[in-house]
Amino acid sequence: MAEHIMKSFDSELRRLYGELKLMGELSSQQLAQACQVLLNRDNDAADVLIAADAKIDKLESLISHDVLRLLALRQPMAGDLREVYSALKITADIERVGDYAANIAKRSKILNQSKPMPAISALPALFALAGELMSEAMQAFLNQDVAAAERVRARDAELDALYTRLFREVLTYMAEDPRMITPGTHLLFIAKNIERIGDHATNIAESALFIVNGEAPGVRPKSDGTTS
Amino acid sequence: MAEHIMKSFDSELRRLYGELKLMGELSSQQLAQACQVLLNRDNDAADVLIAADAKIDKLESLISHDVLRLLALRQPMAGDLREVYSALKITADIERVGDYAANIAKRSKILNQSKPMPAISALPALFALAGELMSEAMQAFLNQDVAAAERVRARDAELDALYTRLFREVLTYMAEDPRMITPGTHLLFIAKNIERIGDHATNIAESALFIVNGEAPGVRPKSDGTTS
Repeated sequence: MAEHIMKSFDSELRRLYGELKLMGELSSQQLAQACQVLLNRDNDAADVLIAADAKIDKLESLISHDVLRLLALRQPMAGDLREVYSALKITADIERVGDYAANIAKRSKILNQSKPMPAISALPALFALAGELMSEAMQAFLNQDVAAAERVRARDAELDALYTRLFREVLTYMAEDPRMITPGTHLLFIAKNIERIGDHATNIAESALFIVNGEAPGVRPKSDGTTS
Repeated sequence: MAEHIMKSFDSELRRLYGELKLMGELSSQQLAQACQVLLNRDNDAADVLIAADAKIDKLESLISHDVLRLLALRQPMAGDLREVYSALKITADIERVGDYAANIAKRSKILNQSKPMPAISALPALFALAGELMSEAMQAFLNQDVAAAERVRARDAELDALYTRLFREVLTYMAEDPRMITPGTHLLFIAKNIERIGDHATNIAESALFIVNGEAPGVRPKSDGTTS
């Protein structure tokens, strides 16, 4: 490429990465907020969170638009093309994390119609781990950090194990008290959402590996024990 | 573009669409098979289905690879670029449908450890509608059929309504008989998977609209009534 074209490509790619970083931060905030909404049984904060998801959705369309523009105008090759392609892939992952946070807020409002479940106390650890995995995956992606990406892939199994433990605990409460069946069900869906966030963090980490290595990483053994 | 380059692009795009068509057919077959596995309580057929998901995953990486090659070598613009970009987006949707079918087969094996739930009888309609939406969405995409794409978008609400009805029915059975709590929970996750397949069909339909119109369709009202 001529130098002035390369320069424009680099600055546009930097802008794209800036948007991705912002989108990742917003979705991490929403996830942390979802945990607070749930623990504090706060319907108003739930509504704020649900409304704020639109910001993440807007960023997703902005980024998709920028990716298409970059592909059409700059026609990147090899490593540059992998970066643009991966940016597109991870926006979809980040957008889903935002959806899950909003869904957790919606389900929290239903939980608030029943008395609190004891199993709620096991949830903050699940949220915290999912939040860590997402932050580390985004760092791995933005810095093309292979070691960090491999750590995220390895640690997703911890999240699966926590999820499985919580799943069984909630079923026990539901069996002991039929009034817990409806809130317990929503709690299981909430826990499943968080477990899925770990999968999206893993996808982001794998996109980082793809940029660096030029090929998709091998198959990762996956089981959360509730199966699923 | 010079004529021979255009020709190569067209033939490569046709090949890409052929792979997408095959991938869509495989995932529809898996979905139909998942319904049979569930109704017949057939663990062996469940294992076959779970193993077959690898074929869909392989097609996804093949298609992603072809898309990157096409972008790098042919550097498509405007409508051509939208087609290639959309092909990439919908492979992710089709791949998830395959995942959901495999997940349903795994959960069926757990359901087979308890006595059959009455609510199972409401499931075939849910499966049938999700299957129809997927086929129609793929047709809309492959034929760039705007009317078909709009129909899929409109009919996703029917699937949501069916899901909500089933969700409530299953909760009732769980409340009546605590032995139904574990199988009921897995049945709710199965129903949720099918409801999500409708969302992926909608995404595919929206990708068809994007190819034709050059812009993303407007926001679609979305509610499945279980909150979510």
